Amino acid sequence: MMISKVKNAMSTLVGGMMPHGHHHHNHHSGGGQTCGPDSLPPRFPYGRPDFLDLTPELLQYSTEHASRPVLTLKRDSRLPWRTGYAEVINAGKSMLNEDQASCEKLFVKKPSSKQRNSSLLEDNGDGTGIPLHFWGVYDGHAGSGAAIMASKLLHRLIRDRLGEIFHLLENPTSAPPICLAKNGSPYQADTKKGAAQETEDPDAVNDSSLRFHMEKVVSLESLVMGVIETAFTQMDDLIEKEKMSYAISGGCCALAAIYLMGKLYIANAGDSRAIIIRNNEVIPMTNEFTPESERQRLQYLGFLRPELLGNEFTHIEFPRRIQHSELGKKMLYRDHTMTGWAYKTIVEDDLKFPLIYGEGKKARVMATIGVTRGLGDHDLKVYNSNIYIKPFLSCVPEVKVYNLDENKHGPDDVLVMGTDGLWDVTTDREVADAVSAYLSCCDPSDPMRYTLAAQDLLMRSRGVLKERGWRLPNERLGSGDDITVFVIPLAGQESET
Amino acid sequence: MMISKVKNAMSTLVGGMMPHGHHHHNHHSGGGQTCGPDSLPPRFPYGRPDFLDLTPELLQYSTEHASRPVLTLKRDSRLPWRTGYAEVINAGKSMLNEDQASCEKLFVKKPSSKQRNSSLLEDNGDGTGIPLHFWGVYDGHAGSGAAIMASKLLHRLIRDRLGEIFHLLENPTSAPPICLAKNGSPYQADTKKGAAQETEDPDAVNDSSLRFHMEKVVSLESLVMGVIETAFTQMDDLIEKEKMSYAISGGCCALAAIYLMGKLYIANAGDSRAIIIRNNEVIPMTNEFTPESERQRLQYLGFLRPELLGNEFTHIEFPRRIQHSELGKKMLYRDHTMTGWAYKTIVEDDLKFPLIYGEGKKARVMATIGVTRGLGDHDLKVYNSNIYIKPFLSCVPEVKVYNLDENKHGPDDVLVMGTDGLWDVTTDREVADAVSAYLSCCDPSDPMRYTLAAQDLLMRSRGVLKERGWRLPNERLGSGDDITVFVIPLAGQESET
Repeated sequence: MMISKVKNAMSTLVGGMMPHGHHHHNHHSGGGQTCGPDSLPPRFPYGRPDFLDLTPELLQYSTEHASRPVLTLKRDSRLPWRTGYAEVINAGKSMLNEDQASCEKLFVKKPSSKQRNSSLLEDNGDGTGIPLHFWGVYDGHAGSGAAIMASKLLHRLIRDRLGEIFHLLENPTSAPPICLAKNGSPYQADTKKGAAQETEDPDAVNDSSLRFHMEKVVSLESLVMGVIETAFTQMDDLIEKEKMSYAISGGCCALAAIYLMGKLYIANAGDSRAIIIRNNEVIPMTNEFTPESERQRLQYLGFLRPELLGNEFTHIEFPRRIQHSELGKKMLYRDHTMTGWAYKTIVEDDLKFPLIYGEGKKARVMATIGVTRGLGDHDLKVYNSNIYIKPFLSCVPEVKVYNLDENKHGPDDVLVMGTDGLWDVTTDREVADAVSAYLSCCDPSDPMRYTLAAQDLLMRSRGVLKERGWRLPNERLGSGDDITVFVIPLAGQESET
Repeated sequence: MMISKVKNAMSTLVGGMMPHGHHHHNHHSGGGQTCGPDSLPPRFPYGRPDFLDLTPELLQYSTEHASRPVLTLKRDSRLPWRTGYAEVINAGKSMLNEDQASCEKLFVKKPSSKQRNSSLLEDNGDGTGIPLHFWGVYDGHAGSGAAIMASKLLHRLIRDRLGEIFHLLENPTSAPPICLAKNGSPYQADTKKGAAQETEDPDAVNDSSLRFHMEKVVSLESLVMGVIETAFTQMDDLIEKEKMSYAISGGCCALAAIYLMGKLYIANAGDSRAIIIRNNEVIPMTNEFTPESERQRLQYLGFLRPELLGNEFTHIEFPRRIQHSELGKKMLYRDHTMTGWAYKTIVEDDLKFPLIYGEGKKARVMATIGVTRGLGDHDLKVYNSNIYIKPFLSCVPEVKVYNLDENKHGPDDVLVMGTDGLWDVTTDREVADAVSAYLSCCDPSDPMRYTLAAQDLLMRSRGVLKERGWRLPNERLGSGDDITVFVIPLAGQESET
């Protein structure tokens, strides 16, 4: 539900339905998006996550909007940590489920010269190296190309970037060196020589050597955070690059959980959400990135780089559209510096459309997109214009760390990761209560319990089809969006061994 | 303690000592600051807050660094709400106390045409209008001019801006109109006509009228927030403008508390801090704005507007200075998008000095200033360069609202506002414990109890002069900075009537 309906009206035809390579690509995807010549093959064919192990018949069945079946893991399937998974397609918004997901166990290794070039093609390894668990949910918009590609590659990029600091991960007790020589070994600067140079340099600021020779201590944890951040950026660059050779439609929000060496790193770029439920208490692990939450960052960019607004938009926010007849009157506004509102006299420039407009789920950047972080969208333009949205979008996630090994967890303590379709209709508290209630009634040794809890959660949020649409038990409207959810037991790594 | 010591070495001579108009101005203030020709008179003479009612002898005594007397309200003085106040000068860092404070009761009125031009000269009014209480603490640096001017005028600017929405404040139950006609009366757009126009406009985005004719409801509270934000901006503009005619040295952090119609608005621009202590629990009311907390905003500006870095600085952060011999090696870094750290190969451009450098209280913007929001500093340049710092500083406060009337308060529930000199050595918890302990031993009817609590707080944070400097009871170093503190009883307005 992220691209404006105006544009979505044009984007319901998103590629053919035949899975596994028989994909007809017909990418009239929305938002002025141009996907390159139709002759380009898709980077990856449309499909559902491999771990669902769907037959073509089941895949076809899953897209039947009238029934909106909740798809879950098969009883004989087994994800790492006994992770639970469920998904449901939207109520007719598009033909395909634009959400994607991945759940992988990988191994971080020292890069060999051979791997440097082809590591993305490597599978999840032979069981040697430092184990890495990865869960990702990707909420696509204006096509499923970016979401599918990210679900296939992001975890491998993270693994490979971690491989580059493998020697540091092997020695987790010593702080990472500030500087590395070309061969990768720590490089110690000759501070005495450095100090002398500075004193001789007439331009150097002549402070006590204490301040200017300080070294910030950087933890291994913040190095892993940096790895994850840069891997997201590389994923985004890769989508842009491969669009030269493949049809990779749309963009996607990306939410990833990475377990490495006792810590869980939650990285979020978009409006998906992750919460930890511990003793039935909610610990939020993400913030959402939307036109409302990132308003000031976007306005600041529009203010500093007005050419990005293409003479069509103003960086100033108004509470409604201004009519030409209102020139000279006073209107409430706020700029990039303000949180409150004030009145300003309306001038010609204020008649442009506001860069950020609308409230809540209807808030949009340039009347086009409702999320401000994610991957892809390189071609996304404002409808009927040559104005690109991408400069206003960030592909960098916010990363939060949860020290898994420092906390005790029971079998009902879980991490829930879900796309916005879930959270739009079900609050954190409701999710926690539903999951806790379900799990407490469920045999702790049942390997399906987390999948059943995920399924239960989706049934609640999708609702039941009545005459007036999909309805929740309380008669509120159920989610009309795609929903994808992982329920991950925090004591799960103990079940591995 | 906000301007780098390098520059402070040059700025210890900050004007003469004679108060009340006999001020010799000799503004060799630091940081490459140029205060205009020496012939310019000061905008306001140096002095301590009027409510302290100091004699010239006492003023002289207060600057004797050897004793660092804690100054408080006189026993027969009385501030609104029985507000408590205390201050102490730094331990020799500068001759004068660069902190300032104000505490005023004012009245918001409908502006008359006469007031429009001269209202700043108006005093606090005749008791008619909507009452407004104001407390401000100003922490100056590189001279006391900006702090003094702000302490004299900011509350009047806020009052006058509130006067402009007087008719809205009079009707607090109806939401402020989105649009005002030139005469100030609400203007209702002809939405039917507007909709028709849009449909005819070929360039208009052809969405459902619902989204494009929505009106955001803006609360009166966010209008007051906007008033406060814009008043800070106007205060900053006024300092810039009056520097043409007066010597107004340095800059200042500004922290203000405004009580209006049942709500307390706390506005903070800088590294001062306010906390509410209620039932001995701490409610933080401010965030500090420092090179560390605003790193990404500043790096983003440097990235988008590299010309502001004057070819001397890089927007990338490194954990230490890079030496020329390290070219081609790999160094930890982070840019404006990152929270974690990663390695990058050092190139020529990385040899520039980092825009943000140092840790904690030693963190600086362009090696010069340790706060990133405040008033003044228009002339502040990087030492020995033509690079201005001001574009990186914001004069806009963060405003938080506390609904005073919706909470019950006992006589020991207070708002504590203090400059960073207090919080550098005393934690929120320690302040709360000290104030609560002091007040609980103190007769609730004693009009001096909040001033005595403020005095007690300052004695604890200043410490006692020993051979090795000012020491706290636990032998840690006491604050060497100026300290100013208000202790404001939250049930205080009840004592007014």
